[in-house]
Amino acid sequence: MTSESLDHSTLNERIAALGLTIPALDIPDAAHRPYVVHNGTLHVSGQLPLRHGKPVHTGRVPSTVTLEAAREAAHACVENILGWVWHAVQGRPERVSRCLRLGGFVAVDASFTDAPSIINTASRLMTDLFGAQGEHARIAIGVATLPQGVPVEIEATFALRESE
Amino acid sequence: MTSESLDHSTLNERIAALGLTIPALDIPDAAHRPYVVHNGTLHVSGQLPLRHGKPVHTGRVPSTVTLEAAREAAHACVENILGWVWHAVQGRPERVSRCLRLGGFVAVDASFTDAPSIINTASRLMTDLFGAQGEHARIAIGVATLPQGVPVEIEATFALRESE
Amino acid sequence: MTSESLDHSTLNERIAALGLTIPALDIPDAAHRPYVVHNGTLHVSGQLPLRHGKPVHTGRVPSTVTLEAAREAAHACVENILGWVWHAVQGRPERVSRCLRLGGFVAVDASFTDAPSIINTASRLMTDLFGAQGEHARIAIGVATLPQGVPVEIEATFALRESE
Repeated sequence: MTSESLDHSTLNERIAALGLTIPALDIPDAAHRPYVVHNGTLHVSGQLPLRHGKPVHTGRVPSTVTLEAAREAAHACVENILGWVWHAVQGRPERVSRCLRLGGFVAVDASFTDAPSIINTASRLMTDLFGAQGEHARIAIGVATLPQGVPVEIEATFALRESE
Repeated sequence: MTSESLDHSTLNERIAALGLTIPALDIPDAAHRPYVVHNGTLHVSGQLPLRHGKPVHTGRVPSTVTLEAAREAAHACVENILGWVWHAVQGRPERVSRCLRLGGFVAVDASFTDAPSIINTASRLMTDLFGAQGEHARIAIGVATLPQGVPVEIEATFALRESE
Repeated sequence: MTSESLDHSTLNERIAALGLTIPALDIPDAAHRPYVVHNGTLHVSGQLPLRHGKPVHTGRVPSTVTLEAAREAAHACVENILGWVWHAVQGRPERVSRCLRLGGFVAVDASFTDAPSIINTASRLMTDLFGAQGEHARIAIGVATLPQGVPVEIEATFALRESE
């Protein structure tokens, strides 16, 4: 597991190639925080597939959300995770040392047992973006409901390097 | 994110003002532990809304448990979390350096997509009690069922200061 | 909480006595990793009750999977967790310093509120095997569905000692 630092311009090229848009986010006034950094570990709260504050899809997989739409939702969750990562490292993503864990939750019908096929979209984006440093442990669970009726929620934990 | 220590009497005043009763808990004889401390991190097991060993409410939100009752349950979960925190720091809660994460689970009907409105009760108590040091990352998920039929379960992670 | 190291032969005796078979596992080619080690913490991905790649049981507790079968599934999850632990410590399990947390998920009918009675099988194996060092924090949640239709999924976090 490499300790090599990813340089900023490589990351920017990959972000474009992967069709990712990293939103500029402001910490909302809420009872909890979108992320916490402590002792070099960045804990990102469960992220919803929101763009400009609105869900990109709502419903349950597969009866009211197709697999393709759910994967788009996972993609949007990752964009928001990255938005908070960039916020946490103050625009210096080369400080990301490792993605440690993704917690993936998919709102499902009782008959749908393939949450991994949705969360894989997020896992692939993480490794396509960060390379070996994006490889992470994971859960992928089918749950009853998610906030705002979205089909996917993903939380994330990262190891950070000290700022220099 | 402040490293200031909260003094004991301020905490006691806030506990009273917030209507919190911190139970004196004994480690049960069970296959797992209510908490583990390792390297300055306190992992509190998922806490149920039990008082004197009995659920304050049972059922599913909102068909058999109202939102108000579910929030009371979240309040009771926090009391039990704090009971274990106090146990872990041996009555010296000024050793709590930061609440890092809450994992909030709400037993819901398929139509109820607002677990955050229940878990917010817990998040607010945490920040009302510990101030900036209570600000945490979070998930809030709607699940099928919880132990003993309770409507809310919350796990928590804290950073502790070394004892002096 | 002891820092005593468990010697290899004691562990091997206990593994046999507990009816555990620790599989020799190979890292699959996947978008995520079965485990990540960082700063002495081992994060094991949610493990399914698979043997030789096939579920030992599928279905939902208790309508299509009995409690006994679900406990066998929890046993198989633990075997896979231990398979990755052994892989991570390269056959030197005396490097396991502590089991910190189990995240236990059980696919349930809406009427089944006793996920802990299933996950207890995993918790007991952990403490029977590692003694005080196996004592862990935990969640035990009833969820809608799990990958491949299995009734139990368990993730785990361990503290490791440095290799000498």
